[in-house]
Amino acid sequence: MFGARCLLLAFRRCSSAPCPKHKQAARLRVCEALEAQEVAGDIKVQGWVRSVRSQKQILFLHINDGSSLESLQVVADPTLKHSDLTFGSAVEVQGKLVKSLHRMQNVELKAENIRVVGPCDTLTFPFKPRERQPLEYSRQFPHLRCRTNTLSSLLRVRSEATAAIHSFFKDNGYVHVHTPIITSNDCEGAGELFHVRTSDKVQEPGENSHFFNVPAFLTVSGQLHLEVMAGAFTQVFTFGPTFRAENSQSRRHLAEFYMVEAEMSFTESLQDIIQIMEDLFKTVTSIVLSKCPQDVELFHKYISPAQKVRTDAEEQIHNWGYDLQTEHEKYLVKHCGEVPVFVVNYPYDLKPFYMRDNEDGPQHTVAAVDLLVPGIGELCGGSLREERLHFLQSRLERLGLADAYQWYLDLRQFGSAPHGGFGMGFERYLQCILGVDNIKDVIPFPRFPHSCLL
Amino acid sequence: MFGARCLLLAFRRCSSAPCPKHKQAARLRVCEALEAQEVAGDIKVQGWVRSVRSQKQILFLHINDGSSLESLQVVADPTLKHSDLTFGSAVEVQGKLVKSLHRMQNVELKAENIRVVGPCDTLTFPFKPRERQPLEYSRQFPHLRCRTNTLSSLLRVRSEATAAIHSFFKDNGYVHVHTPIITSNDCEGAGELFHVRTSDKVQEPGENSHFFNVPAFLTVSGQLHLEVMAGAFTQVFTFGPTFRAENSQSRRHLAEFYMVEAEMSFTESLQDIIQIMEDLFKTVTSIVLSKCPQDVELFHKYISPAQKVRTDAEEQIHNWGYDLQTEHEKYLVKHCGEVPVFVVNYPYDLKPFYMRDNEDGPQHTVAAVDLLVPGIGELCGGSLREERLHFLQSRLERLGLADAYQWYLDLRQFGSAPHGGFGMGFERYLQCILGVDNIKDVIPFPRFPHSCLL
Repeated sequence: MFGARCLLLAFRRCSSAPCPKHKQAARLRVCEALEAQEVAGDIKVQGWVRSVRSQKQILFLHINDGSSLESLQVVADPTLKHSDLTFGSAVEVQGKLVKSLHRMQNVELKAENIRVVGPCDTLTFPFKPRERQPLEYSRQFPHLRCRTNTLSSLLRVRSEATAAIHSFFKDNGYVHVHTPIITSNDCEGAGELFHVRTSDKVQEPGENSHFFNVPAFLTVSGQLHLEVMAGAFTQVFTFGPTFRAENSQSRRHLAEFYMVEAEMSFTESLQDIIQIMEDLFKTVTSIVLSKCPQDVELFHKYISPAQKVRTDAEEQIHNWGYDLQTEHEKYLVKHCGEVPVFVVNYPYDLKPFYMRDNEDGPQHTVAAVDLLVPGIGELCGGSLREERLHFLQSRLERLGLADAYQWYLDLRQFGSAPHGGFGMGFERYLQCILGVDNIKDVIPFPRFPHSCLL
Repeated sequence: MFGARCLLLAFRRCSSAPCPKHKQAARLRVCEALEAQEVAGDIKVQGWVRSVRSQKQILFLHINDGSSLESLQVVADPTLKHSDLTFGSAVEVQGKLVKSLHRMQNVELKAENIRVVGPCDTLTFPFKPRERQPLEYSRQFPHLRCRTNTLSSLLRVRSEATAAIHSFFKDNGYVHVHTPIITSNDCEGAGELFHVRTSDKVQEPGENSHFFNVPAFLTVSGQLHLEVMAGAFTQVFTFGPTFRAENSQSRRHLAEFYMVEAEMSFTESLQDIIQIMEDLFKTVTSIVLSKCPQDVELFHKYISPAQKVRTDAEEQIHNWGYDLQTEHEKYLVKHCGEVPVFVVNYPYDLKPFYMRDNEDGPQHTVAAVDLLVPGIGELCGGSLREERLHFLQSRLERLGLADAYQWYLDLRQFGSAPHGGFGMGFERYLQCILGVDNIKDVIPFPRFPHSCLL
């Protein structure tokens, strides 16, 4: 077995190993070619043909490789036309990047060689050039719909947002933790659970059916595990799949979705948590907007049903920032005039045991905060956690949970700093910035029942 | 509902919202304080006490906040000693960062105020100051063991490696994809499956027991889903949990583990895949070594059983880089003298249907590559994928899988570029760079049955 340095050394020495590659034309991604000025020497672009237009003197192609919404225009001598060179085919084009005479693009690729490496049966291919299909149509082709502009833009935005979330936390000194997916912890009523078993067969009663000796579920939240880690690393986050066995045929729910969750020790005020939620939203959204402006625009132009109300919303936005105490979420959103709002301090009896008691007399609230966005509902939810042993213990005892959560009580005996945390649904976030009504339209693969094959 | 720009605007306008925080001493993480020179003005450090040493004239503390292996030395007047100020307690220390007179550290914190925000019951706390416990001991305390040096170092390395993996792919133009966790795809024999159900109750035969209408499993690999996406984005990767319902009591297997998987379109040579595997390993390992040198060193010093053989391995490393064709993996590793080796071209009949037929006569191999590391076994595995419709079709028909994989065959009709990909087990990677023998020692939480409580 080897340590890190030994293996690195081995790989470095190995650089003399035979590499059969001969010098080739520089390969550029479409997004790189589009941003380049003229390039000396040949370049190679690989991608899928989005359009073929044959004129007497000249052949026009548009090539897309998924690196941007925009395609690269290729101009070629008509003799380079080949019967396999159709919409949807996979091609490699070699040639020179030259200044384009057209207003719509900076550069175009003057092809010297076009190689079709994967022909496309255009008759049966479910998508046609320059056609905009409704999302319900493309959802029937979970294995092909990533070749459409909408899915392609969505995936680039998801990818950028994912990277930005990781960077945000890393840049702010958070340690990333992979919290367990299979767990015996049900996070106390966060939602309906999926059960995990080794066999799908009917079990005889009494048979030891559990691989793990105890019932095992798919995680509904990594929060409690994160709290453990916040007790050693101060600031921790996770960004992984979570599950709810709720009927996911609605437009609002998914059985499987992603959550960003963070926990911070030495946090004594809800305002600190609100600040981090805000910073996260601002930072990630700014990055997505600067990296994928065209992709976001596509959604606002063609998908978002909210386009018409946006101006109106902007006018109302001065209402933002309410810092209210109330007992009813619904009342609040309505009261605030359908603008996004942080709601703080929820009734003690309605919230889970881990939220910190505000000890505020007859109204009796806990230090919780939700960020509610009209049309989406809860985008983020967080709270101060109850760090005081005696508060937590008496609450768990009243709920009959003291035994199950002995380990959680334990944490409060051994250097339990005041702490808090929050979670943000990643798909909700995407709905929010892209203005997408149906949560099923912001995931890479349609879930069951549509994706039986996948 | 709002688009991205509207919401950003809203958040910006909201910056005038009331923020009750008054000006406080600058908060520094321990790692920042350790690297700082003297700082003008007061700073605040928060963390857990690793040692308390009381002398007549002076009180010494060491504070750790999980941001580094090293703790920060605090010096204080003995009058600041408080009965709760013990090993394990959570404290906030305010004071001035001054040059230290000791050789072992650059700076120390001259405390003006020490606040114990979370006392520790040292009598029942399972860890003691300056004690090195075996890993089996600390595994009994899954909720507390992150306060030990070993787990703390492991988590920092995991976190850095995770970030480095995301950066590597992003910097090289890959699109990140969240492939489904719950799937009906069993990735054809990649391993034993976990079944997902909504209820753990005994089912009557014939009862519709499937939430999803079809049997649903936990993913064993995102490869086939990634191939779909590589057909639109050229280069894609995923980094998520995968599952095997195999007995995970061994030192080599986990029921739940993380995999890095990548697929690249327009890839026609195994050498290209080997190159990316190598680049990934080198880049991530270099980053981990530069960001967490002390953490890696701790493992090499105290945990790795391979310490003694490392020199020997270094001498043998010139054997690295063998590029062999063979039929038996075991024979190969032995033949190569227990050094890491890329093994290429495996027998057709032993490998899954998606690997590309080399059409090489009687020996009949597929274009597959494994990176084998002695002591670890397979660290990475990859292959060119069969992009040719007729090869794939006849193979799937012989295997009786043509119906189940119609969607996969479909991909080959619509612009199927030559492509390939690979996967790397994340825990295997960590074992490899840290020299850890038991795979259970590189995960944040011990899995079942040890973690019944979590």
